[in-house]
Amino acid sequence: MKQYVYDQSEGSAEMRNLLGGKGANVAEMQRIGVPVPDGFTVTTEACVDAMKAEGVWPEGLWTGVLERLEALEQRTGRRLGDPKKPLLVSVRSGAVFSMPGMMDTILNLGLNDVAVRGLALESGNPRFAWDSYRRFVQMFGEVVLGVPSDDFEHALSMLKRERNVKNDTDLTAEDLEELVGTFKEITAAFAGPDAFGDDPREQLRLAIDAIFASWQNPRATVYRRANDIPDDLGTAVNIMQMVYGNLGDTSGTGVCFTRNPATGVNELYGEFLINAQGEDVVAGIRTPRQLAELESELPEAYAELIATMVRLEAHYGDMQDIEFTIEQGTLYLLQTRNGKRTAAAGVRVACDMVEEGVITREQAVQRIDPKQLDQLLHPTIDPVAPRDLLASGLNASPGAGVGEIVLDADTAERRGKAGMPVILVRWETTPDDIHGVIVAEGVLTAHGGMTSHAAVVARGMGKPCVAGIDGLQIDAQNRTITIGGRTLSEGDTVTMDGTTGEVFAGAMSLVPPRFDEYFERLTGWADEIRTLRVRANADTPEDAERARGFGAEGIGLCRTEHMFMSEQRLPAVRRMILARDEDERLAALDELAPMQQGDFEGILRAMDGLPVTIRLLDPPLHEFLPSLLDASVDVERIREHGAAGNLKAAEALLTRVKELTESNPMLGTRGCRLGLLFPEIYEMQARAIVRAAIAVKAAGGDPCPEIMIPLVGFAEELRRMRELVEKVVDEECEAAGVEFPIQIGTMIELPRAAFVADQIAEHGDFFSFGTNDLTQMVLGLSRDDAEGKFLQQYLEDGVIDANPFQTLDVDGVGAVVRMGCELGRKTKPNIKLGVCGEHGGDPASVGFFHHVGVDYVSCSPFRVPIARLAAAQAALDSTFKDR
Amino acid sequence: MKQYVYDQSEGSAEMRNLLGGKGANVAEMQRIGVPVPDGFTVTTEACVDAMKAEGVWPEGLWTGVLERLEALEQRTGRRLGDPKKPLLVSVRSGAVFSMPGMMDTILNLGLNDVAVRGLALESGNPRFAWDSYRRFVQMFGEVVLGVPSDDFEHALSMLKRERNVKNDTDLTAEDLEELVGTFKEITAAFAGPDAFGDDPREQLRLAIDAIFASWQNPRATVYRRANDIPDDLGTAVNIMQMVYGNLGDTSGTGVCFTRNPATGVNELYGEFLINAQGEDVVAGIRTPRQLAELESELPEAYAELIATMVRLEAHYGDMQDIEFTIEQGTLYLLQTRNGKRTAAAGVRVACDMVEEGVITREQAVQRIDPKQLDQLLHPTIDPVAPRDLLASGLNASPGAGVGEIVLDADTAERRGKAGMPVILVRWETTPDDIHGVIVAEGVLTAHGGMTSHAAVVARGMGKPCVAGIDGLQIDAQNRTITIGGRTLSEGDTVTMDGTTGEVFAGAMSLVPPRFDEYFERLTGWADEIRTLRVRANADTPEDAERARGFGAEGIGLCRTEHMFMSEQRLPAVRRMILARDEDERLAALDELAPMQQGDFEGILRAMDGLPVTIRLLDPPLHEFLPSLLDASVDVERIREHGAAGNLKAAEALLTRVKELTESNPMLGTRGCRLGLLFPEIYEMQARAIVRAAIAVKAAGGDPCPEIMIPLVGFAEELRRMRELVEKVVDEECEAAGVEFPIQIGTMIELPRAAFVADQIAEHGDFFSFGTNDLTQMVLGLSRDDAEGKFLQQYLEDGVIDANPFQTLDVDGVGAVVRMGCELGRKTKPNIKLGVCGEHGGDPASVGFFHHVGVDYVSCSPFRVPIARLAAAQAALDSTFKDR
Repeated sequence: MKQYVYDQSEGSAEMRNLLGGKGANVAEMQRIGVPVPDGFTVTTEACVDAMKAEGVWPEGLWTGVLERLEALEQRTGRRLGDPKKPLLVSVRSGAVFSMPGMMDTILNLGLNDVAVRGLALESGNPRFAWDSYRRFVQMFGEVVLGVPSDDFEHALSMLKRERNVKNDTDLTAEDLEELVGTFKEITAAFAGPDAFGDDPREQLRLAIDAIFASWQNPRATVYRRANDIPDDLGTAVNIMQMVYGNLGDTSGTGVCFTRNPATGVNELYGEFLINAQGEDVVAGIRTPRQLAELESELPEAYAELIATMVRLEAHYGDMQDIEFTIEQGTLYLLQTRNGKRTAAAGVRVACDMVEEGVITREQAVQRIDPKQLDQLLHPTIDPVAPRDLLASGLNASPGAGVGEIVLDADTAERRGKAGMPVILVRWETTPDDIHGVIVAEGVLTAHGGMTSHAAVVARGMGKPCVAGIDGLQIDAQNRTITIGGRTLSEGDTVTMDGTTGEVFAGAMSLVPPRFDEYFERLTGWADEIRTLRVRANADTPEDAERARGFGAEGIGLCRTEHMFMSEQRLPAVRRMILARDEDERLAALDELAPMQQGDFEGILRAMDGLPVTIRLLDPPLHEFLPSLLDASVDVERIREHGAAGNLKAAEALLTRVKELTESNPMLGTRGCRLGLLFPEIYEMQARAIVRAAIAVKAAGGDPCPEIMIPLVGFAEELRRMRELVEKVVDEECEAAGVEFPIQIGTMIELPRAAFVADQIAEHGDFFSFGTNDLTQMVLGLSRDDAEGKFLQQYLEDGVIDANPFQTLDVDGVGAVVRMGCELGRKTKPNIKLGVCGEHGGDPASVGFFHHVGVDYVSCSPFRVPIARLAAAQAALDSTFKDR
Repeated sequence: MKQYVYDQSEGSAEMRNLLGGKGANVAEMQRIGVPVPDGFTVTTEACVDAMKAEGVWPEGLWTGVLERLEALEQRTGRRLGDPKKPLLVSVRSGAVFSMPGMMDTILNLGLNDVAVRGLALESGNPRFAWDSYRRFVQMFGEVVLGVPSDDFEHALSMLKRERNVKNDTDLTAEDLEELVGTFKEITAAFAGPDAFGDDPREQLRLAIDAIFASWQNPRATVYRRANDIPDDLGTAVNIMQMVYGNLGDTSGTGVCFTRNPATGVNELYGEFLINAQGEDVVAGIRTPRQLAELESELPEAYAELIATMVRLEAHYGDMQDIEFTIEQGTLYLLQTRNGKRTAAAGVRVACDMVEEGVITREQAVQRIDPKQLDQLLHPTIDPVAPRDLLASGLNASPGAGVGEIVLDADTAERRGKAGMPVILVRWETTPDDIHGVIVAEGVLTAHGGMTSHAAVVARGMGKPCVAGIDGLQIDAQNRTITIGGRTLSEGDTVTMDGTTGEVFAGAMSLVPPRFDEYFERLTGWADEIRTLRVRANADTPEDAERARGFGAEGIGLCRTEHMFMSEQRLPAVRRMILARDEDERLAALDELAPMQQGDFEGILRAMDGLPVTIRLLDPPLHEFLPSLLDASVDVERIREHGAAGNLKAAEALLTRVKELTESNPMLGTRGCRLGLLFPEIYEMQARAIVRAAIAVKAAGGDPCPEIMIPLVGFAEELRRMRELVEKVVDEECEAAGVEFPIQIGTMIELPRAAFVADQIAEHGDFFSFGTNDLTQMVLGLSRDDAEGKFLQQYLEDGVIDANPFQTLDVDGVGAVVRMGCELGRKTKPNIKLGVCGEHGGDPASVGFFHHVGVDYVSCSPFRVPIARLAAAQAALDSTFKDR
């Protein structure tokens, strides 16, 4: 039979998978002699087995809990529900991966109508005892029985009004005793007269059950989805003797980090409240004090805390995030874990620890979550932009954001998904707001500190957050806020700076981030380690320059169609499409040729000495024309309503639009199919590329263009297009009297191309896997149609784990890529293999590409550092297992 | 060095690939002692090598020709261009696969200004000599020098007018001598004074070259495409001593078959002309006489011909198509080959030959081209339909057709490709009309016999043809025809019956064919041989019955969406789609449920005892709504122009249409994605199926439904849908108190599904490869968009060899199918594997499916016999090689 329950003394940090993060670390602290309250832990396995059995507990679980409880009662000399020396315990969730605030907790379990009197007597503080009992009834009611919290809050408010007092603390022991009665009535009315029994052991069983169930509550599920945590891990449950930070002025509670989690600087960082319980700090209800101030309040406890922080960081070899409680002068640690930190802080801490000799360079590289680097890539507010400061608050999560203010998470989600940038403004956020935070550009709150829910979640997601903004008022009725004395309506735009804690009226321009020395050092180490090259997708000289600044080693995908879309060029492009014969088409192409050449010259100069892969025209031609509906309406307007315009021209346009409109353009006349139907277009583009290269070279540059033929499915397509391009290259080189070898290759973006990659390789110098289109074809999934619609539903319902357009679908698309690599190399062992889909900037996917033997990935400029780091981590990861 | 030239005496029938069909068979005839003119053959290899070298002859070719020529001159005692005993030769193309009339021929080569006089003297027939020379100058001019034939015809007409005669034969020797002079002037004017030299050896070289080149002329290329003949085979060139059928009344020429090629009956079948050259028969200029009449004209030659026909059929073991010439009483065979025949004739001949002990049943099965069976599937005219007979002609190719008359091949092609059924009406067809014949429903000609070009080509393509229609006049100027004394305009509709030779005014209804005893016998043998099962795709009880009649062993694909499309149901379907909530949707579904159940009952009854695979709803919902354009126009009309209608309803419809409109519906919300979003739809369908099955069983039937979930890409999709369907099955069975196991499987139509077929197989009892969609996804090719457009261009330009929607793309889609089979069987060795794309009725594809280990194919009812035969041939084919 499995062991489902462990005493803290049986555990250690290594048992994280079984005991959860909290349970393992508490056990580890106990093991090395750090003061923690006594207790035991129900394993994640117990939760998983109970889930599998649809809630029925596996054999041995309840007897295991009872055994450990009795042992705890013996060790402490107390008993649950004891009329004299009652044992009170906390019952907390503790998953393998931290999910702050997402699951449920019950405190003060062990109290009933008898034990509360014992507690009052023993503590000499009846008010404390009744307040503890009141809190327990409320928590148990909410968490176990599902009583709406509003019902309790309402009763509390009523009582305060009756007593004519303002704060909870103004209520007396008698008031609270009365309130317990009221709370029990509320509970009975909601869940039946017997729902709230008085047997603490039965209550413990129900509490554990409720925490198991909270693993599957909606906000936890959303959080897991957002953080790529598997749904089948389950949570452990930690049962620990209660300690109290609210037993007077020698008691307190707090949260601290061993280094600054925002900057990474090795300095004291934390907050505390005197005479308070932990919830008060985390929930952001009272604004806490800086940790340094604790020294003057409780010097001994402070000294012990500082020594413990140093010891724990050394022990774990990483920055720690610690929760502590001081009960009447005695320090207890409730939790320690590797601290969440901003990307900048993570990089700084890793670099410092290499310096301090604590970790190696490889460890430093492995320690940074490449996804988190995204944070560093967030823009900041243009320092010279005009500033209209509204208010300041705590700089809870760095970065800048611009968006329309929205006042609740549902609205945020709706507008955000519609593509609107939004800033979520809340009194304080709760775990129920998680779906709004996910889509928001940033979060503003009226309450709460650096360790409030909003701050922690925003930092984890790399979104800016300004918390505790003084004077921020929210009028949910009228959908307005008051900030800095001014009233704004929902939908008004603000700019926020989470790094400084400032909020500004209107939209300010943002500037791209500059990386600091630590970042440069770390990515430098990554470059030494990785073998996978990293290029960028860039269509303009500006993008190319930016990409180079981010460390791109070339351009893997330069799309030429964006150059066609610009307003000055579209008329010529349309003339080309509407041409009645080849002569007219050639005339239009002649207009475009010098513009294209200019584009290419700029890009080749920006990437001097590095390869630039230019893809010839890819999208279907109708993308350059108005829609069928618009063209029809235009004709109608001129014909029927005598609107101004040339009817003949409008009709001709409509006719061509009709001809070109496709029912599935993604699978239509595009890519090299265009090149085969209208060779003069590809010829013009190839000529522009070669001329640009010759011009740049003549000016002393070192241009390295590569020409990429899109959407090849048959070797014969590439053979013909290659012939065409080679002819142009030869002509232009001869005309200029130079030699200029240009590599010609293809995108592998059709499943067929991967299946016949051996045939295609005969005509190509390189392959570039277009994993966006490949995903569409392999999964039969139009990104435009699916992503906002059923794909979202699939993710929410758990049909799939990850959005395949963000993280490569390894089983399907990955298998196609692998086959393409293998068959391509079978024909040409040295064929150059790249990836130019968006997956090139996704760390998990980069790992796959490294292991499958791709030579380079290409991603958007901002993601280049992420790809560099992910590539290094992949090179260090010897555990990679393919399907 | 390769041997590029072979004497006829060196060759045999086995050397077909090298000597071409004609060359090999002439050699074979010579070998077995059948009288043929002496000669030699230039190999197909010579042609291929010359093509590769862009026309430059390979070393040894010309010296080889000269050597064999000199040997021929020695054997015959004649010399090319000799002033006394000139040797005259024919220079003919001869490909490996017969391409009648598609390439060029030059006759009478060897004549020049000197030799013509020798021929006149020797033959004692100066008119014959000058006519031969005149013909040579014209053919050489046209074929080698490219002089337009009209120039020559014009000169001939002028001369006849000058001499005031009507027929060519009325011109004297002197007239023809003058005409030779005129022809030479025409040639000189067109191609330069030296183009037409007087050295016959040089002319021979140029003639061989021209025939090489004619392999690549447009009509030959089109023909190869239509008949799946590879482009890189090249043609042989046969140089043979001339014999003359136009040397007076003891000479003649003809074409005959050893059995009736239209019916297969073992009877005399052929045509001849006295005092004529072969061209006159084949080109259909004079209407020839029945072969039997030859007996009275030239009894000895006739007897020898009949004996030779019997001998040749026995020698080749197949029906022969023979060309012969009688020169002054002496019989020469110019060619023999396996005769083209109608499908019905092919089946009859094969069955008879089994009876006669000439071939085995297996050989009989192998001998029929399954594609040709299509012919038998052509409908015939409804015998009780009112008949308005216009005219009768020769029943040149069987079958019936209805269409608008068109007067030239270009118009036929244009209208035919636009989807209009057309009947091509011509004086006589030439190889230049081939593209028109390909798209036409049938062909009518004023001239020509059963062996005329139109007849041969139409029979080969299984299209009806009525030739030699007396009194048919064509007025190309006014685009009208006169037929049976009535005038019709281009675009008027006629009905034709190629089996009877009748042409009717207007459109008559056609009825499906019934198969004769020979067909039943042959397909019966096929059924004994094959292991691959054959099912049909059918959506209605009528289709199911028809399929069963054709030998279908079940239904492999029953689409449920067609049932939704019917006019009475569409309103309920739309209510279902427009439902504002689940209740409204369920109400609409409740309306549809009994209708669906009725459909299924009918189909299950029709397929009693055989499996019926029913696919749950597949297409995107917007297919059941009006188009975006129509819905917009409707709203506009009501709103702006006050048209009648409910604006609110129209707007609601437009809104839903907008929501559902997808940019790539093929890759959108369809298949099981619908089932996951709207489980109630699939639930209704599953319930209707189970209830139908229970009802049919209760009535004593043996229903075998299987439920198929479409568009599965992830195993989880199938797992959930299976759970849903199983729940319904259990509920209904329990309610009815019966046990009814129903297999549940999936289509494999996404590439991903094949890659994870091992995962998917865990939840499916069967796979059905939807090769239509699979082709679209693997090739990234929307059938709707590509087939009329660039795919056509690809086929014409030779980028691809075959339409991948007709013949499976083995390298791409085939590889996906193979992988799906292998992975599926890895998980479930006995999983049932089927194919339900249109490729299931394509013989080449059926071969692939057999060898890859599929259990059954499913195709349209009419193609079931084709698939049965193809499956048997695949079972007999031990040469199958996978890539």
